[in-house]
Order: sequence, then C-alpha cells, then structure tokens
Amino acid sequence: MTQYGPRVVVPIDLKKKPWEQKFPLHNRWHPDIPTVEVVTTGEVFRVEMMDFSGGGITKNYTAHDIKHADLSIVHYLSGPIRIMDSDGILAKPGDLLVVEICNLGPLPGDEWGYTGTFDRENGGGFLTDHFPCATKAIWHFEGIYAHSPQIPGVRFPGLTHPGIIGTAPSMELLNIWNERERDVEENGIESFKLCEVLHSRPLANLPSTNGCHLGTIQKGTAEWEKIAKEAARTIPGRENGGNCDIKNLSRGSKIYLPVFVEGANLSTGDMHFSQGDGEVSFCGAIEMSGFLELKCEIIRGGMKEYLTPMGPTPLHVNPIFEIGPVEPRFSEWLVFEGISVDESGRQHYLDASVAYKRAVLNAIDYLSKFGYSKEQAYLLLSCCPCEGRISGIVDAPNAVATLAIPTAIFDQDIRPKNNKVPVGPRLIKKPDVLKCTYDGNLPITRNPSAT
Amino acid sequence: MTQYGPRVVVPIDLKKKPWEQKFPLHNRWHPDIPTVEVVTTGEVFRVEMMDFSGGGITKNYTAHDIKHADLSIVHYLSGPIRIMDSDGILAKPGDLLVVEICNLGPLPGDEWGYTGTFDRENGGGFLTDHFPCATKAIWHFEGIYAHSPQIPGVRFPGLTHPGIIGTAPSMELLNIWNERERDVEENGIESFKLCEVLHSRPLANLPSTNGCHLGTIQKGTAEWEKIAKEAARTIPGRENGGNCDIKNLSRGSKIYLPVFVEGANLSTGDMHFSQGDGEVSFCGAIEMSGFLELKCEIIRGGMKEYLTPMGPTPLHVNPIFEIGPVEPRFSEWLVFEGISVDESGRQHYLDASVAYKRAVLNAIDYLSKFGYSKEQAYLLLSCCPCEGRISGIVDAPNAVATLAIPTAIFDQDIRPKNNKVPVGPRLIKKPDVLKCTYDGNLPITRNPSAT
Amino acid sequence: MTQYGPRVVVPIDLKKKPWEQKFPLHNRWHPDIPTVEVVTTGEVFRVEMMDFSGGGITKNYTAHDIKHADLSIVHYLSGPIRIMDSDGILAKPGDLLVVEICNLGPLPGDEWGYTGTFDRENGGGFLTDHFPCATKAIWHFEGIYAHSPQIPGVRFPGLTHPGIIGTAPSMELLNIWNERERDVEENGIESFKLCEVLHSRPLANLPSTNGCHLGTIQKGTAEWEKIAKEAARTIPGRENGGNCDIKNLSRGSKIYLPVFVEGANLSTGDMHFSQGDGEVSFCGAIEMSGFLELKCEIIRGGMKEYLTPMGPTPLHVNPIFEIGPVEPRFSEWLVFEGISVDESGRQHYLDASVAYKRAVLNAIDYLSKFGYSKEQAYLLLSCCPCEGRISGIVDAPNAVATLAIPTAIFDQDIRPKNNKVPVGPRLIKKPDVLKCTYDGNLPITRNPSAT
Amino acid sequence: MTQYGPRVVVPIDLKKKPWEQKFPLHNRWHPDIPTVEVVTTGEVFRVEMMDFSGGGITKNYTAHDIKHADLSIVHYLSGPIRIMDSDGILAKPGDLLVVEICNLGPLPGDEWGYTGTFDRENGGGFLTDHFPCATKAIWHFEGIYAHSPQIPGVRFPGLTHPGIIGTAPSMELLNIWNERERDVEENGIESFKLCEVLHSRPLANLPSTNGCHLGTIQKGTAEWEKIAKEAARTIPGRENGGNCDIKNLSRGSKIYLPVFVEGANLSTGDMHFSQGDGEVSFCGAIEMSGFLELKCEIIRGGMKEYLTPMGPTPLHVNPIFEIGPVEPRFSEWLVFEGISVDESGRQHYLDASVAYKRAVLNAIDYLSKFGYSKEQAYLLLSCCPCEGRISGIVDAPNAVATLAIPTAIFDQDIRPKNNKVPVGPRLIKKPDVLKCTYDGNLPITRNPSAT
Repeated sequence: MTQYGPRVVVPIDLKKKPWEQKFPLHNRWHPDIPTVEVVTTGEVFRVEMMDFSGGGITKNYTAHDIKHADLSIVHYLSGPIRIMDSDGILAKPGDLLVVEICNLGPLPGDEWGYTGTFDRENGGGFLTDHFPCATKAIWHFEGIYAHSPQIPGVRFPGLTHPGIIGTAPSMELLNIWNERERDVEENGIESFKLCEVLHSRPLANLPSTNGCHLGTIQKGTAEWEKIAKEAARTIPGRENGGNCDIKNLSRGSKIYLPVFVEGANLSTGDMHFSQGDGEVSFCGAIEMSGFLELKCEIIRGGMKEYLTPMGPTPLHVNPIFEIGPVEPRFSEWLVFEGISVDESGRQHYLDASVAYKRAVLNAIDYLSKFGYSKEQAYLLLSCCPCEGRISGIVDAPNAVATLAIPTAIFDQDIRPKNNKVPVGPRLIKKPDVLKCTYDGNLPITRNPSAT
Repeated sequence: MTQYGPRVVVPIDLKKKPWEQKFPLHNRWHPDIPTVEVVTTGEVFRVEMMDFSGGGITKNYTAHDIKHADLSIVHYLSGPIRIMDSDGILAKPGDLLVVEICNLGPLPGDEWGYTGTFDRENGGGFLTDHFPCATKAIWHFEGIYAHSPQIPGVRFPGLTHPGIIGTAPSMELLNIWNERERDVEENGIESFKLCEVLHSRPLANLPSTNGCHLGTIQKGTAEWEKIAKEAARTIPGRENGGNCDIKNLSRGSKIYLPVFVEGANLSTGDMHFSQGDGEVSFCGAIEMSGFLELKCEIIRGGMKEYLTPMGPTPLHVNPIFEIGPVEPRFSEWLVFEGISVDESGRQHYLDASVAYKRAVLNAIDYLSKFGYSKEQAYLLLSCCPCEGRISGIVDAPNAVATLAIPTAIFDQDIRPKNNKVPVGPRLIKKPDVLKCTYDGNLPITRNPSAT
Repeated sequence: MTQYGPRVVVPIDLKKKPWEQKFPLHNRWHPDIPTVEVVTTGEVFRVEMMDFSGGGITKNYTAHDIKHADLSIVHYLSGPIRIMDSDGILAKPGDLLVVEICNLGPLPGDEWGYTGTFDRENGGGFLTDHFPCATKAIWHFEGIYAHSPQIPGVRFPGLTHPGIIGTAPSMELLNIWNERERDVEENGIESFKLCEVLHSRPLANLPSTNGCHLGTIQKGTAEWEKIAKEAARTIPGRENGGNCDIKNLSRGSKIYLPVFVEGANLSTGDMHFSQGDGEVSFCGAIEMSGFLELKCEIIRGGMKEYLTPMGPTPLHVNPIFEIGPVEPRFSEWLVFEGISVDESGRQHYLDASVAYKRAVLNAIDYLSKFGYSKEQAYLLLSCCPCEGRISGIVDAPNAVATLAIPTAIFDQDIRPKNNKVPVGPRLIKKPDVLKCTYDGNLPITRNPSAT
Repeated sequence: MTQYGPRVVVPIDLKKKPWEQKFPLHNRWHPDIPTVEVVTTGEVFRVEMMDFSGGGITKNYTAHDIKHADLSIVHYLSGPIRIMDSDGILAKPGDLLVVEICNLGPLPGDEWGYTGTFDRENGGGFLTDHFPCATKAIWHFEGIYAHSPQIPGVRFPGLTHPGIIGTAPSMELLNIWNERERDVEENGIESFKLCEVLHSRPLANLPSTNGCHLGTIQKGTAEWEKIAKEAARTIPGRENGGNCDIKNLSRGSKIYLPVFVEGANLSTGDMHFSQGDGEVSFCGAIEMSGFLELKCEIIRGGMKEYLTPMGPTPLHVNPIFEIGPVEPRFSEWLVFEGISVDESGRQHYLDASVAYKRAVLNAIDYLSKFGYSKEQAYLLLSCCPCEGRISGIVDAPNAVATLAIPTAIFDQDIRPKNNKVPVGPRLIKKPDVLKCTYDGNLPITRNPSAT
C-alpha cells in the first residue's frame, strides 16, 4: 500500500529528556553507537530532533540558562540511521550517501527558538573578547517568519537548516580526529599566533565521559566507558560532515556524505530556524527543535569517484553540497568590510578570520546607530540570513572579508542617507537582550577609538 | 544645455602607454598625487582605465609575460578626481563620498581579458605552493559573456566590477599603513604561524621608487622622489577602499568611501570582467581595460555619522557597500567545503584562510574529474562568479569555509550522479592553459593522498 | 500564557465528509452564512481545508471520478471567520482586511494531489475543444516537491497557495453579481463573439440549491432555501477576492481584501500545491487538502483609502496583493508565444484570451516532441509554475501573449538544439495520464496542419 | 586576425534621416526588400537602429510631436541581414534561426528616451477611451537607470530589449497576413464585440504606399510601387516574430525564429530601454535609439523539428524564446487584479483583455493616491518593468488578470499601511507629463464611481 507522508523514523516527545526518548539521543561521534532504524533509498522519511541543548536552554526570559549551560552535552543528535538500497544491501565504506532535504521545520507546538552568546569562561564565541557576558534572545515563529521581543524592529523569513548532519566515522578516522585535536589542545595557543585575536575557549574539545550520551548504551557500563573515552565531540565540522553550519542547506538541498562504516549511520540534529554565515555568537543560530524529511540515495564507490582525499589518508575528504532552486533571495544588501588589521591596529597576514572579525565589528557598530544595543546587533548578525564572504585572499598583507546584510529584514531603511540617522521614535532603545554579568578575569578587547 | 551621455573625465587611448595618456596614470596612494579633474555631485561621468598591468600583459598566447611581469608597477589607476557639491564646495575630510556605479564595461574594441597565476618567485597566489608555475588563459567577450580557448566548455556572464576604487589617504593615514606593513615585512613569517600554509610572496609590499608612477609628476624630480618613497602600494585593500576585489560591485552598486583629503581624490582601476570570491589565483579575475560611469554624492560629516573607527585612531575605518537590485543570480550551486586542517593533516585553530584553501583545493580536484586540468580549474575558480563563504567560525577548532559554484556555467552537468563521471567526448582533455616552467627552489606542497 | 504554534480555528478530519466536519463547510458566497469563529488582529491562526471537491475526487488511478464529478458542489470552503481588532471591535464595511500568509502546506498524512481536465459536457476547460475527454494525474509530494507517475520526467517545488480566499459579499454586492452573470447566461454566446474559441461550459453558474452547502445551516430549512437561492457560486473570482487563482500567493504574501459585512467573514479553500498562470485545464492546479497559517490586520476605512471603485457603485473594487521576498525563483525559462489568430487562421482583434490559447497550444505541441502525450503536456502546463504573460496588448490587430516554462523542472534539456530532438531512452512514451472517453457531440477543434 | 569587439553590420548616424543612412532603413515586411549585409553563424555582430519614429519624436518638452506623429512610417527597422553558416550556405526556408542577444544598449551620446500616448484619433492605446490626449514623458539614462523629469520619484534599471526582431515573410505568408487583416478591417468592429471596450484605432493597418520605406529601393520606382502595395505593416507581431514587445528579451536571451526566405533576412528595431508587460500606452516603452550585439546559429530543418503549425498551413507558427540567467529580479511586488467586468459593470466572458484593462485601471487609480496624476501613472505602468499575468482563464465567466509592480522603483513605500496615505512633501503634485488637448469627438469612458 502506498504510504502518504513520510515515515517517522525518529520521533521526539518534547516532554521527555533526550535520554528518555523512544530512541535515546547521542552526543558523540563513534562507529559503535547503535543504530536505531534502517531506511531504504528512495523512501521519504522523517527525523525529529530536540534543540542542541536537549531542552536545557528554555524559553524563559533569562540568560542564566545560557551562562550556566553544560557544554559537555552538546549536541544531542537523532539517529544513527542505517541506509540500504532497494535490494537490501547496506551502504558501504567508500560509497557516497546522497541525502536530499525534502522538507523541514520546527516541531508542531514548539514554534520558538533562541539565540545566545555563551559566557567567556564557558564557551565564548567569535567576539567573546568584546562581549564576555552570556546573553539570550527568544524568537517567536509566525510561519516562515521569526521575530524577537528582545530585538524589535526586525522580522525575517527563516532559511531553516540542520546545523549538524553526518555519517559515523570509522575507528581509523576517529583516531585521526582525536590525535590532531589533542595536538592543538596540548600545544596550545602559542603555536597559533592567530589565536591572539580569537578567544573562544577551549581550543578543542577532546573526548570526555562527562556528559556523554550514547543512545541506547547504558551509562556506566563497560561498553559505555570504552566508547565514551574514544568518541569525538560534535562541536567542529569534520570529514564526516557534522557541524557544518552551512546556512543554505534548506529545502531542496542535497548533501553528498562519505560513508565510513557499513550502513553509513546517519545522525542529525542542531536544527536552526535561521543562521548567518559564521554563526558568530556560537550559540548563534535561532536554535530550535525540529524535523527533517529526507530521501537518500547511494552512489556506490562514490567517494573515490567524486571526493578527493587531501591529506595523509584516503579518509581526509569533505562532503559536497548542492543548493537547490527554491532558496529565498533578497535583492538589496548592505555590505560591511573588514581587513586583516586587528583592533589594536596591528597588521596580520592574509588572515580571513581577523578580517571577518573586523567586518562583523563594523556591522555591529553601524547597527548601533539605528537604536540597537551592540549585544542586539551581535545576536542579530549571528542568526539573520546575512552572508559572510571571503572577498580577497591574495592581496598581501590584507585579506578582505565582507558581511552582507539584507536590508529588507528591518522595518526602517538602514542605508546611509544624506539626512542624519533618524532619531526619536525610529530609535529603538528598549528593550534589550537578556543578559548576565561576566564574573571572570579574562581581558576584554577595547576599541581605542570608541567613545 | 543638457548633456546626453556621461562626460568623459578620464579618457584612455589603448595605443599609448600608461604614462603617455592625456592624464598619465598613477600606481601609488598618496595625498599629493595631483588630481586630474573635478566633478560635481549628481553628474554622471565616465572614467576609462587600462588593465592593471597597463598593457604589460598581452593577448598573445604565452604565459611568459605573466612569468616575467614587473609587479613593481601594479596597479595603474585612473584619477585622482576631486569631487565638489553643487555649490562648488569640495568634499572634506570627515565626509562620506557616495559613488554609484551607473554602468561599466570593457573599452570598445578591446573586448578581451586574461586570468593568470604568477610564478611562485614573482607574486605567487593563494595556492602557489601547489601551483608554482606561471599560467595564463585568454578570455574573449561576446557581449556580457566570456569564454576562453584555454578553458573550454564554460561560458558565463560577467559580474563586471572595478577591482580598485578608493580615496586618497591623508599623510597621517599613509604613515599608519607604512608602519604596520613594515612591521609584518620586518618581523616576518615567524610571527604569523598561519603563514606556514599561505605562501604568497612577499609578505607585504612597502613603498618603493621602483616602477613608481605618480600621474603628472615627472619621474626623477625631487617631488617625485619624495612622494615615491612615501606612497603606499596599491596591492592590499585598506581604510580608503582600494583593492577590495568585492566581486558584486557591479551595475547599480553604491560605495560609501571615507574622505581623508580635501576633494576626496577618487582613483579607480583594475577592472574585472568577472571574479570569484577570493580571486584565488591573484592575477585572478578576468583582467581587462574598461570604463566606469559614476555618479557621486557627498554625505557631509558622514564618517562620524556612519563609520566606526576600530583601532587606535579615528582613521581606522572601512568603507560600506550597497549592492543593488540588478545583480544576475544563479539558482543552482554545487558547494565545496573546507575545514581548518591543512594538507599534511595538521589541525589549525578556527583559521578561515586554511579552511578556504582546503575548499578551493577540493573543488579543483573535483572539476579535474570532468576533463579539466587542475590549472584550468584553478584559473576558472579564480575568475568565474563563484561564492566563497565563511560558514562556521566558532566551532573550535575547525573553521568551515565553503566555495559555491554556479552549475549553469558549464556545458555539462557537473553534479555527482549515480552513473560514473562521463567519459569520452564530454571529457575535455585538450587544450590546456598557457603555462611556463617553474625554475625556483621553494618547496611544493604535495597532497599525500594524490595518485 | 503565551501560545506556541497557531491556534487551530478550523480543523478538518479527512475521514469525514465536508458537512460532517466540526465546522461544516460551505460552497457559496452569502452574507448570512454563519461564521464559525472569531480571530483577533495580530494572532497567528490556522485554517484547515479539504480539497475543493471535498474528497469527491480520489487518489484512485482512474479518471471516472473526474468525468462524473458533481460540479454543483464546488468549492468547499472553510469559515467564514470573523475578524476583530485588539479592542474587540469587528472589521466593518469599508475597512481593508490585510491577511498575511505565514505558512501553508498539505494536511499531514495527506501528501498527494491531483490535476485533471473535466469532460467537455461537464465543466470543460480552456482547451476543451481540443481535449474533450476527462483526464487525471495523481501527484505525490516529497516535502516541497511533487512528482506524478502519470507525467514522468518532471519534478518541481510547489509554489503552494490557496486558490480561494475572500470576504463575504453584502446583499447589495451579491445582487450585482447575480444580475450581471444572469445577463451573460441568458443572452448567451451570441453576444460574445470571443466565445467562439473559448469553449468552457456553461457561460456562468447561477445560484442553485442543487449541491448547496451553507455550513451550519440545515439543508432543507426555510433559511437554507432562501439563502441557497441567492448565494453566489464560488467559481469566478470577484470583488471579494474569491477564486483568484493567483499562483504566487504563497508564504509571505499579503492580501488586502475589501470588507463588505461586519466581521469581514473570511472564507478560504481550494488549496493548490502548485499551479501555472491561467490554471488552463480548469481542474487544473495540483488540487489538495491543506492548511493555512494566517495573521490579519485591519486598515480602518481602507477601502476608500486604497481601493478604487471602477463601475456603477463603490462596491466595484478589486483586492490588492503583495508578494513577499521568499518566493522560489527559476533562472532559465523557455517561452512560447501566441498571437490573436485562431486555429482556423482567423484574425481576432487584440484578444489576449485567444493569444494565450495559441501560446498554450504551441507549448503543448512542443513538449510532445520530447516524449509526452499532448494530454500530459496540457496537465503539466496547468499545474507547474509556468508564467502566463500579456506581452503586447496594443499592436492591433494582434495581442501577444506568452507562456514561460522553467526549464529546471524537467530531467532532460528541453531547449532547442542543433542536434535532433533526443530519441530513444529520453523519449517518454509510457505511461500516460488517466483518461476517459468523450461521449458527447460537441465539435472538436482540429488543427488543420497537424499530421 | 582575431577581431575584438563585434563587427558593425548596420551603422547609424543620428544626424541623418532614416533614408539617408549608409543602409537606408525600411518600415515594412516583404521578401523583396534588399538585404544589406551577410553574417556568419558564430560571429558576434552589431546592429544599430534609430528609435521607431526615425527621429520624428524629439527630446523637446512638448507632446505636439506625439499628437501629430505620422504613424504611416512606423517602425523604422535596420537590415535585412542575411545569415549563412560557416560553410557559406545561407539559412533556408524551414530552418530555425537562433539569435542570441549578447549585449545591447542606447547609442552612445543619445542616452535618452520617451514614453507617450497617442491621441485617440491618431493611434490611441489600450486605455485611449479613458485617456484620449497625446502625452509624453522624457527619460534620461544614468547608465542602467532611467528617470524622468515628468514622472518624479521613480528610478529603475532598464530591462532593455528590441521591440521588433523578425525574419522576412515569404510571399505566401505575406498573403496570408494581408488577407486575414483585411478581413478584420473590412468586417469591422461589429464582428468583435470585444472591441466595445478596446478603442485603439484603426482595427488593422493594411499595406499602404503612404510613408513606406523599403531600404535601398528608390521611392516612386515601379519596384517600389509594387512592393509597397504588398508589404505588411510592422505594427502587430506575427508568425515571423516582429513586434513581439516581449520585455524580457534582454542580454543573454535567445530567439528561435522561423526562416521563410533564403538567408532568413533578419530585421530589427524599435529599441526599448524598458517596457512593462502589455506596453499599454502603445507609444509605450521607453523608446530610444540603440544597438544590439547578436550571434546567430542555424538549426537546419528546425521549423519542422521544433515549431508547430497551428492553422491552415505549415507557415502558421510562432517563434520560441529563451530567457537567460542574467535578468534583473525584484523581490517585492504589489499586485493589482482585474476581472472581466467592464467599467459599466457589464459582465464579459473569460475575456483576458478586459480583465487586464481593469487591472491597469485599478493600478493607475491606486498610484494617483501617492501624488501622481493618472497620466503619469499610465505612462509609468506602460514603461516600467511591471508584469502582466493571465492568472485565471477558466473560472467562467471571469478571467482574472494581474499587474505586478516592483515596489523598489519608487522612492516612497507605496504599500498599503495602517496609517493614512502620506501627505505633504511625499505627495508629488508637480510637475506632470507633457500633454496636448484632445480635439476629437469620440466618446470618453467615464468611471461612474469616480469623484
């Protein structure tokens, strides 16, 4: 009998904790995390997911849950799901798994999300040296639109996407990850002068049993102990896809993921109602619960056919993505530029991260002239559909990065004009984002030219 | 009497050298380079320009002119032009100069351009450690379209723009530039670990009398000597705009430039028929001669009103740009991803430059499966309208950068398919880019996984 | 307490008949049809609806339900809903009701639709003189995409919209409608020479108790009898909006409806997963059940402020629509043209209907060269997101109309090429649409040049 | 030697009359009008053209030249040009001529245009019964933008295109045209009840020696007399393309024209800087001189392959068009609707022309609330990039047509708002279009509801 509507492969009950779900969630990458279901190529199926915090961050009007968030548990993922072809043969290492996003959205009855910045001592963010406090904004959804009581005067349609989608790594790949990330963590900031201006903490997140959830594997068992010590954290994007945070992976997109283990073991989560390129505030998209309707194909032997290993092993590959014809488009953009000169006036060499930091800082200050607090602007640029570009990467010593903001999301005209910036009723002074104090001792970057 | 058509403020005769033009060109930034004309706000005027090399690189089918290019002379600019308002009052320091691009294009009768990579010993480029040889492709224009005998099977409309547009720096700003860039040049690569994977040479280009042209100031005079020793090179984008290489600054765009000297002293050049984000091959757009039709406005006191100093002085600002409603748009994109792990497998920390390098390398290898040489793909990605994005900059330790290629520019379907990559007639083996040998000794980065 | 998710104002149970729903549906326009709910401006609310046939046309693979469809019952609408402002004051005659479409889609579990042509004796369609048989195609939805086993080789994203949305007419307006439509019906085709080439039947659909449903008013009561005899059929679009069939009224659109009765009495239905401009086959969109998430505002006195009466009374107005920034867009279109010369070669005078008929006929024949039957092409052009334009309406004697088809919806390249039209595997000969015989005697228009 | 830049095949000297040009222009369709040049497939060539009036309508600020325009001479065309393939073999009857528009624009130094309405006794227009007076607005071009002193507050980028492009008819086709158009002219308005509401004059324009220009054929010779009596007027679009007025035929478009005579004999003219769908005011685009850069291909036997005869002979075909990826796009539109009820309130049957008339009237009235005169709005809607759609053509008795206006062309927000329509400085009362008196006696349609 023909099925109408996608089969629900992973259901979520929002009244339950991540580990109480029918298929308990996991928050690590490891080949031995048990799969929960098998789907067939060509079948449209539905995966539901909690927000990345598994409900830890709430819709209450306070930023305390952000300030004290337990980052050892991010991100709660749904799956893993095994994929087989219509002959019943599982995806195999070396295949390419094609995942089409047929539809997606928030979970019905849970049409809200949040954007925040973590405290500098607890996660930080791209500009944490400027904005060390934990902050939060709640977004309410009106169909495709989001608006926030904490950031008035803006409303925009979501380019909704999963922040995380990936296949399980093989043990060999997992070992490569753990080794290279341990190297950063241990050798530390000294070996990366760049880090002087990028202050997120910590440098890397190594495997840790603390906060570890492995789906149906019982916490505290020997199996759990073994896997938890090996399993990679989900924070960075890696060879298996994972936390790519590519904001355009919305309806109609396709993702070509390498397969490292039999069945592919697809996991997904960290749903974003909307995100700006870079997700600069780190807790930075409009984070929400949600669902995906997916359809898979398998390209047999596709890794060798289409992906290029770039590194010591054939596993050093990256996924490919295809963006479809149905993406919303804006026609007018205001663009801010940054060059690789830091806030102290020091010259860096072709450093796109520094240049982008400067572009974002420029945009924040600009928006603050239209009645927004800098924290409001920071959160907004993290979650609205703005585009972050590497415009020039060869004109030594300056990389040029740009941040383009669609002007249509504002209820006022934010373009520079011959008249003065509007004052009075157009200036939005109150309310502001929800905010906590910063109680730590790390140094704050001050802009010497700021008044 | 009403004038029809824009007034030609800077004419170019392509049969003459840059220094033989009616208004001899200049290739440095300095407040004392004499202005050539004055224009009034609201007036549409035309500025013509030679290609950045001033005709040094030719349409001959050889890459020798690229290999032996004299980089001391780049970029030949037209202007400077003074701007005054309708009351005859010049733009003043602290104003914002609004430059609208009403129209642009190649110079009639000169409808061709070139893309190249410099030799690793003579300029290099973003991937010069992989591609050390000088290469060149000639592009022929058919109206809005470009195609190249050296890169068959692609044809695309140009998103034509000036690579360089900027105002003259004040002496104070010039001194800031020279000081900070000298610091990089002198303290060198050791202080920037990032540089290990970015191999363009040299680190910075300090003022030099060698190859210096200052418009109407006679070479060898005392005035010329003085200015030439102080004047900044035009290679990097800086506070005054300059070599921004923002590929979307096409018809209908507006540029909000800070004014540092009386009259603003607007210069422009380095016309690009088309460029990809990043301009990765360095000589990397479709370089051409061209014209701009511009209209200016002055926002009095606009620097303070709209720009944010970010650094030690009020001069540490960046221009703002506005992209208009007439930009061509593609609906389908194939996206390549890179993370901040380098070719040796080493982990870098939130380094968008490394991540973008990886994304470009992935794309080049991918395209080589469709019959292109890697050099062809490198040049193509440098000059076609591809988008380079900073997708994630907070998920330590990996920055995620993406390169999106519009699929419509190819005459074959380059998306991954269940069938094998097409072979036979669709595989474009010959011809190839024009290429020289690399005769230097700098180390080449090899991909350990390449066959 | 804050509500998350829209309030369901009109729920639908697809297992029940239209008249068995919690709020029984209605299929007529009349001021006295009882309202079912009241909503407040600013509130996001959800209206669910059955397909226009109220379930009469099924997903069975037969066209018999189309051939024998009871057209006296179309269209089953949800509502009417009264609108009041936040002070509890109802919308009043003379106001403008702003309805924003925040979201929409098929009803969960009912992700399918159909497109058909009615039999020439029972409804017909724009080309019924060429295609007199009842036909049907079933579409299956994969998230935003639709595909049909009966029209293989095409798949497209839906630009989903309600075919019908409107306010209740006042008695005065209702009388105007009934009078002018009776005039057409009675004076007949002779007075409209245009009709010679437009063969839909009947000329108009006057009020009729047959098939009439009036929501909660019991059939057969005196009240029902009175209203049923007066109430207007829902087939044509009129001053109150109604069956506008504007295919772009999708997510993010706004509709400015005139208010004729206190409360506005908003009704909606006839959900379309996708439709081409013109909805040429009449049963012509991808018809489906569905839901709308709406938000209303009231512009007090807005009719006088913004609408223009054009006719004998102030009621002779039309709604205004606003199309938002989130509409999917295609970048390549193949365009077919028609002029106002009919199939017999006869010249008509500036007749856009004849010109559009010719354009559609041209497109159908063209697509038949790529392996489609003409019936497949007819249904496809009726429901895919093609654009029908009035290109020239002044160059006597020829109106020029065009039909633009987005090429990306096909899995083959349908543009003309120097090579022959592809033959063999790309030619899709089977299957075909579901089809009944035509048993009537009306004349068929033959193309004298057809082979 | 390679040629850079397109070869100028038809040059225009604007100081000369149409008949004094190097290749004298023609204003009729006939197979025996001598060709002026031959071009080869694959070659990019340039055709220059005068405005349709051949300079008869001037940039003087008066509408008298419109009122007294000699319509017997429209439209002055450049060509005919013969097309041959690279083997030197001419295009042949039955081939399909593919014409790609590589570039286009106004003639340098002539960057202005005009929009007008003809006097009701001398040409009229779509709404001539409402607006019987001759009017004119002059547009000045600033690169891609146009603005008019007579219609302040709007500025828009041109979607520039040739109004006329076509191949020469064979004698057989010419006879078909003359016969069917004579039939309209002779049997007159009585046979087309539609005409009651469409008042352009005359019904058709039959061959006439008056005003006839046939290129190099000397006026008054026997050859001229013979051809002039047979040659078709250029006003309507027909089987050979001709005056299609498809506003999207801009850069990057392709036109697939049937070939009826050896060499194809391509003619073009009637350049439009911009036009709205329908070109409602008749003299209705922004009319200008201009140039096309074209490239041709021949699809041998392509008429049979790709076109469908629809009528008594194989010559009853229409061209096909392909719109490319570089079209400017707007993201927000305000849409006006019309139904087939005329100004008197009378019901018409599925008449898209009547419905579109109503939509345009509605839009004109709406814009008049924002400070424009109705004549300003009429001219604006005729020439700005608005879209005219046939939205519903099956819901008897009402056809639904829509007119969508891009909101970004106005310097004020023209969307309906809760506040009153802005008054005071935003209301543009003066100046107005240039206007003559109407001195005739034809009845004027009044809107009974107008104040």
